[in-house]
Parts: sequence; C-alpha cells; structure tokens
Amino acid sequence: MRSLAPFLFALALSTAGAHALTPAEIVAAAPQSAWTDIPPEDLLVMDFGDGKRLVIQLAPDFSQAHVANIRRLAAAHWWDDTSIYRVQDNYVVQWGDRTEKKPLPADAAKTLPEDYSIVRKTVKGRVIPVPSRDSYAPTTGFLDGWPVAMNAEALWPVHCYGMVGAGRNLAPDAGNGAELYAVIGHAPRHLDRNIALVGRVIEGMENFSSLPRGTETLGMYAPAQTAIPIRSVRLASEIPGETRPHFQMLDTHSKTFADYAHARENRQDEFFNVPAGGADICNIPVPIRR
Amino acid sequence: MRSLAPFLFALALSTAGAHALTPAEIVAAAPQSAWTDIPPEDLLVMDFGDGKRLVIQLAPDFSQAHVANIRRLAAAHWWDDTSIYRVQDNYVVQWGDRTEKKPLPADAAKTLPEDYSIVRKTVKGRVIPVPSRDSYAPTTGFLDGWPVAMNAEALWPVHCYGMVGAGRNLAPDAGNGAELYAVIGHAPRHLDRNIALVGRVIEGMENFSSLPRGTETLGMYAPAQTAIPIRSVRLASEIPGETRPHFQMLDTHSKTFADYAHARENRQDEFFNVPAGGADICNIPVPIRR
Repeated sequence: MRSLAPFLFALALSTAGAHALTPAEIVAAAPQSAWTDIPPEDLLVMDFGDGKRLVIQLAPDFSQAHVANIRRLAAAHWWDDTSIYRVQDNYVVQWGDRTEKKPLPADAAKTLPEDYSIVRKTVKGRVIPVPSRDSYAPTTGFLDGWPVAMNAEALWPVHCYGMVGAGRNLAPDAGNGAELYAVIGHAPRHLDRNIALVGRVIEGMENFSSLPRGTETLGMYAPAQTAIPIRSVRLASEIPGETRPHFQMLDTHSKTFADYAHARENRQDEFFNVPAGGADICNIPVPIRR
Repeated sequence: MRSLAPFLFALALSTAGAHALTPAEIVAAAPQSAWTDIPPEDLLVMDFGDGKRLVIQLAPDFSQAHVANIRRLAAAHWWDDTSIYRVQDNYVVQWGDRTEKKPLPADAAKTLPEDYSIVRKTVKGRVIPVPSRDSYAPTTGFLDGWPVAMNAEALWPVHCYGMVGAGRNLAPDAGNGAELYAVIGHAPRHLDRNIALVGRVIEGMENFSSLPRGTETLGMYAPAQTAIPIRSVRLASEIPGETRPHFQMLDTHSKTFADYAHARENRQDEFFNVPAGGADICNIPVPIRR
C-alpha cells in the first residue's frame, strides 16, 4: 500500500484504454523501422575493474577531431592499464592516465582546437525541436538522435546524464580526448560549449555511477583509495564475430519518438495527477537497445 | 596538461583580480550573518550498512502532515532494522519496510491527504525568484532555502538531486512517510506535485548514490542482492550532547546567496569560455555546512 514500486511505469495494465500509454510502453511498441543501427566504429567498449563493462557511443557530428583522436587511441590500445581516478558526486567520473606522462601514439594529436558548436544551416532538416523552455539556450532539440541546444546561428551538444566529454585544462587548450569524463549527476549544463562532448554511455552506466566517490578535492581518488584499473578499451569494429556488441537507437525523426517525447512531457499514466506539460532536454533520453 | 582537475573550481588563485570569484569562493567568504542554524528537530540522522551515515533536513513548509508523521516514526525508532531495498540508476534510492507489513506506531497516520502545493499569498515576501526560464513551470525560486516552482496562485517543491519524498501507491493515496526515497540522478521534475517532498539529504549523499543498483524492475534489489540494513534513524533533537550534529544553511535572502546564484548562472572563472547566462533551479544547490 505504501509501495513506491509503481512509481515509474505505473502498472503496465493490459486492459486497453484503462490509461494512456507510458513512455516505456510506446517504445516497446515501436516498429522495427523506427530503430537505427549504430555503426560498430561508433562504439567504444571499455572493460574495467572487477569484470565490469561500459559501452560508449561516439558522436557522429560533434568535435570530430576529438572523436578521430579517440578512435586512434583505442586502435593503439592506449587506455589499457590506465585507470578511473576521479569520481565526484553529482558531477563526473573521469578516466585515463592520471600521471599525464604516458606517451600518446605517434598518429594522435597532442592538442586540438576548440570545436564546440555546429552552424545550423549545415544540418538543416536534421533537427527535431523540443517545445519546452530551456534555462540555458533559446531552444533545444535532437540532431539525429543527440540532444542539442540552439540559438539562431548554431547548435551544440548538451551535458545530460551519461554524456561523455574530453577533459581539458584552462582555455584555449581543448584537450585531446585521452582524458575522458562521463556525467553521473544532474546535468551540468554550464559546461555546454566549454568542453568537447564526444559521446554518451549507452550500456553499463550503473557500473560508473555506483563507483565509490573520491575523497580528495574534485572527487580525485586519495592515495588510500585504489584507482579502478582499466583492462581494455576497444572499438566494436575491432571486436570479432559473435562477441561484437550491436546496438540500435530509436530514430528521433520517427513517429514513435515523437509519441515517446510527448508522453515524457505529459505523463498520463495512472500514477500521475499533474502532467508537467513539458520536459527539459535531458529528461527525454533517447531510447537505445542491444 | 590534459588534466580535468581544474574543471569545477578552476584554480583558486590568490592573485586578486585575476579572475571572477567562483561560486565556492563566494560561499567561503560569506559573513557569519549569512548562515542560518537548522533546528535539530528538522534533522534526521540515518545509520545504515557498514558504518555509513546520512543526514536529512526535513522541510519546514511542505507536506507538513507527512513530516509530522516522519517525526513520529523516528521517535518510535520505527525504521530501525528496516532496509534500503531499491536503487534505480539515474532515479531514486528507496528505503523502509519492503514487506509493507511492519505495524506503524499507534500515533502515526496510515494514509495522509494530498498536500503538494502552497498558496503563494501565504508565503508572501519569503520567496527569492530565479530569473532563468524553467521547462516545467512559469517561474522558479527559493522559499526560505528550499527550491520551488511557481505559477500565479501556488508554489511547490521540486525534485532536485538529493531531495527526499514519501513513496505512495496510485492516487489518491498520498502515502504516509514510512517509505521514503531520495533522488540520485537528473532531476525527475515530472514527479513535482505528484508526490510529497518532505526534505533533502544534506550530508552523506555519496553513501546513497554509490550503492549498487538493483537488478529487478524499477531497481528493486533481487533476492541474490543483499538489501542494505538500516541500523537506526533518529531525530538530531533526540541525540544527546556532543554527538548531536549541527548544521547551517546559507540564507537565500542574503547578499552572499544572490552573488553565489549569479555566479552559478554566469560562470566567469578562468576555466569557462561561454557563461551560460542562466541556471535551472536544480543547478543552484543551497550551500549547507556542518
């Protein structure tokens, strides 16, 4: 009676018409045509710690020099035997070479120029707008499956939960993609346009978010805390045969996605009394499946 | 060089004038008069698991019938030997009596009426507005230190990271405060006005957010996962002498808080290239200190 169990999906009643469909029910009913394959060269598979795995989808449009560098680092197995050394609560997990002394592969760039926005007219017709007001930008939406904020001239990716970015030092240093971080808390949107976002975690996020928090400043692991060893990081395109993972994402141009977003904005399941009438861009996660 | 270490606070340079003050620096320089004591009867101290502790501040204005019931349950030591049995990634931790069979104390209500909003004119002069646009409500702000959303007639608390609410079943059941949850991910604002918010975690949040995620539906712990035992839950007013914890919060009516919120909205530290020019209500956490 006091249970919070029906909290998220309400009851998945089979009695048609008893209540409006939940977002999860809408996605479950999506036709095959609404799903898009994610290319294996856009998937980064990271094995770490005690048998834990994380899969990152690289962004196909944002900070492409950084993404290209990340592919080179993965091909060189550069992250093998590096570590996760920073976990700051309600903020980020960060990994790479904490010593910052491990030599980069010969073909990898040491620093890269800032490249945080895309000119809107170059992606005309590819953006699905979100109607809700945003605290950080005039408008928001999805660029082929990726959450973006926009003004009249440009659009840029946003720091939602699970998004992955490239660490950097003080500007104009824009980093090189060797030190990466993932968002594990409320969207730190003030970082938008200040750091290169390069992808998002699409599987195993709970293996990151449940890591012990670092006790030093900024969540850095203290000497007494054991940094989490990274066993290997591989592009899925390098993983052979049956062990290669395959993923699909819901096409943000599909009718199913429109219905899903609308249901996220106006929850009508039995559990809800007051539909919000809106949702911030980070509260409409793009559905992804294996 | 590739470090992300200066990410949050940039460098706390002592060279005055070299950069705008960070939010943390503004709070550190607050005069004693900007801090307000939190009454011990508003503090709930929860000991759980392997020596872990969490402190919750009860809300002094919202869902007061729920809050009164929670004080009765704590006084009866009702939560002792219950458990944390649900941890859903990017959503909530939930605790209480999973069996829903433990008898409530004689003086505790079994169900309570819905009470999710406050009439604005009853709290006139106590609200500090936040200028940013919000995706869920016409305006937002702080009611004596608590984040709220507002329309012309009413205001209500919002589901920011760390906020604590009372589980309930399908409406119009409004729960009784025995089953509680805390937000451990991006603010699930669609729950605003749909569940009774009763407080927020002010210490030990990392002990909640790093718990292993439950593998059953909605993050419920599976039989093979051991639910986290709750040792004791006490009001601080019941804890004697030197071991009683004391906390203060930054007065949201103070000039220091206004400066802090402005700096959160317009990050000018050396690290930032593009100040956001705004911040959503959940990205301006109210500073609290021991």
